[in-house]
Amino acid sequence: MSGLAGVTAGQSSICTCGLGNGLNYRGYDIADLALKADFEEVAYLLLVGELPNKKELKLFQDKIIEARQLPAAVKEVLRAIPASAHPMDVMKTATSAYGCVFPEAEDFSDQMDKITKLLGAFPSFLVYWHHWHVNGKEIDLISEEQTMAGFIVERLKEKKPFDVEVKAMNAMLTLYAEHEFNASTFANRITASTLSDIYSCMTTGIGTLKGHLHGGANEVAIKFVLQFDNVEHALAEVDKLFAKKEKIMGFGHRVYRELDPRSPIGFELAKELKELETSDPKLFDIAKAIRDKVKAEKGLPDNIDFFGGLIYHYMQIERLYYTPLFIMSRAAGWAAHAFEQRANNRIIRPSSEYTGPEPRAFVALADR
Amino acid sequence: MSGLAGVTAGQSSICTCGLGNGLNYRGYDIADLALKADFEEVAYLLLVGELPNKKELKLFQDKIIEARQLPAAVKEVLRAIPASAHPMDVMKTATSAYGCVFPEAEDFSDQMDKITKLLGAFPSFLVYWHHWHVNGKEIDLISEEQTMAGFIVERLKEKKPFDVEVKAMNAMLTLYAEHEFNASTFANRITASTLSDIYSCMTTGIGTLKGHLHGGANEVAIKFVLQFDNVEHALAEVDKLFAKKEKIMGFGHRVYRELDPRSPIGFELAKELKELETSDPKLFDIAKAIRDKVKAEKGLPDNIDFFGGLIYHYMQIERLYYTPLFIMSRAAGWAAHAFEQRANNRIIRPSSEYTGPEPRAFVALADR
Repeated sequence: MSGLAGVTAGQSSICTCGLGNGLNYRGYDIADLALKADFEEVAYLLLVGELPNKKELKLFQDKIIEARQLPAAVKEVLRAIPASAHPMDVMKTATSAYGCVFPEAEDFSDQMDKITKLLGAFPSFLVYWHHWHVNGKEIDLISEEQTMAGFIVERLKEKKPFDVEVKAMNAMLTLYAEHEFNASTFANRITASTLSDIYSCMTTGIGTLKGHLHGGANEVAIKFVLQFDNVEHALAEVDKLFAKKEKIMGFGHRVYRELDPRSPIGFELAKELKELETSDPKLFDIAKAIRDKVKAEKGLPDNIDFFGGLIYHYMQIERLYYTPLFIMSRAAGWAAHAFEQRANNRIIRPSSEYTGPEPRAFVALADR
Repeated sequence: MSGLAGVTAGQSSICTCGLGNGLNYRGYDIADLALKADFEEVAYLLLVGELPNKKELKLFQDKIIEARQLPAAVKEVLRAIPASAHPMDVMKTATSAYGCVFPEAEDFSDQMDKITKLLGAFPSFLVYWHHWHVNGKEIDLISEEQTMAGFIVERLKEKKPFDVEVKAMNAMLTLYAEHEFNASTFANRITASTLSDIYSCMTTGIGTLKGHLHGGANEVAIKFVLQFDNVEHALAEVDKLFAKKEKIMGFGHRVYRELDPRSPIGFELAKELKELETSDPKLFDIAKAIRDKVKAEKGLPDNIDFFGGLIYHYMQIERLYYTPLFIMSRAAGWAAHAFEQRANNRIIRPSSEYTGPEPRAFVALADR
């Protein structure tokens, strides 16, 4: 009962996770999708159920690219939000404002169109707000990069990304895109189940992902790695944490007991990224040594967040943006679940066990 | 399994609903709370667990009144949102923006302070946006009305409200404030369960309430009543709907089988409001006749939404604002549940039964 752990809350045809060691989206292995397809193909697969052919992909991608341009009202909202705001709150506010400007039809007949545009607008929310408040300038939302992955890296850093950066960003978007009835996805399905609009489903997802028990694990993981000067120092500290029985972020998983199938992919990407001129390769060695020690001594495998944090760090992305990037990815999964919920809907409304006071007589304010 | 109906998803000490015919908040009968206490006392009761004494109430109320003044950034956001926006989306966007300006502490030590201010700010979101976009002017957020109920009516209509209007608004805020693990409350608890912030919990609640299977029933109910010229016309139409086996909004309830304990209170309030000079008393007669017929012939009792819609109609409140008013009320319940979830937390993460494709081989784009 607690946390609904192990309770089957519905049927879904989107993703298998934890069957054996696998993670499949619509039947396709995550390793193939992450390395052989663009994120746009994966988002389409999640939303529609099948991989797009060239023509379908072109239409989908064109719409995403067009949506990089934000409406004036959303830009105004982004400028009004203070520089001190949490980037997750920025993303949530902009998403909600976007829904005010481009409302979904009441019969949901345009759901695919609306979510496609929102996917295209997400990176613009972040880069527009970032450059306005951090760099004090209004950034142009035009880029030669055709993919979402390329656009994100190029516009955030304002320089042509290396191929390995686009490859890694693309893979990260795919790796984080879908994960069955996790908390943000399930909350998003409840929002869908009242027949609310798709933007409300997305803001529920974003607000739920923000909690550090859900999103944010890769931020904590890289912070942990960054505090060490060398492998010996790191291993000694891990010993201390073992002695105190403290948890190390980025290890173990509620669903995967033996192996997070996303981890080896993240490991290889981090290994490639450490060769960049701006990368400190020592961090990779430290992370690898920690991983090996935790596995050997505690039997706990690393999950995607452990090397995921290092990947973004090597790409010189601000730590507070890791979870907003998670939004851009998981939104495809959230929307696929919202569509699925709508197609065979019953409002989600459980019960509770009452543990409060017995009926008691009202006492007027004067007598309190 | 479907919709988690009948599944006990956790413990709660906030509300009993459907035990016999009762609805109690923290052990107090809804009828006492709705008619003998201000909504502020009820909100405090839900949040803290006990009714406030005079001093506690004064502090709580002062903070609510102070929060009627909105920060400049939130006003900017409200002005940027187009006049065509759905008022629920306006409320959600403003709530999210408010959280950007006044973030909650990471340890939640200020949760009570933050939610108190948000309760005070909610009516201002609506009246500020309303007067800016509908009446083309920036409205003053100062009022002599001390209660939330009085402030809402006075600022929306810009004239001193009648006592019966304040009484009715106050009762409506209390009647809608809490209802156990309904969809918006449960979704809000999932957001809380990842340890996200209180504003994210509230935007989840708002987005979920927006769906017409949840909020909005009172809008549909009054629309139904308004189409009839007289009692005979209405009863003939009800006969037709019976013949077509169509559902009439405002009747029956998933939890209450015999009586919605809020309904008799709503009925009496509507009866008082029909005496206002601006009220059309015939509508009350029509509603009453429909209620009696549905009960007599189908055994279905009316729920709070049936006369609830008429109450707001008699108060000349725009139909699209009924559900935003529901937010201002239910937010107290949502926050009480978020606090309860935080106090004894485990992340809420159910499972699903997979019904999708078997593992299949990846096909490269060139071959699709």
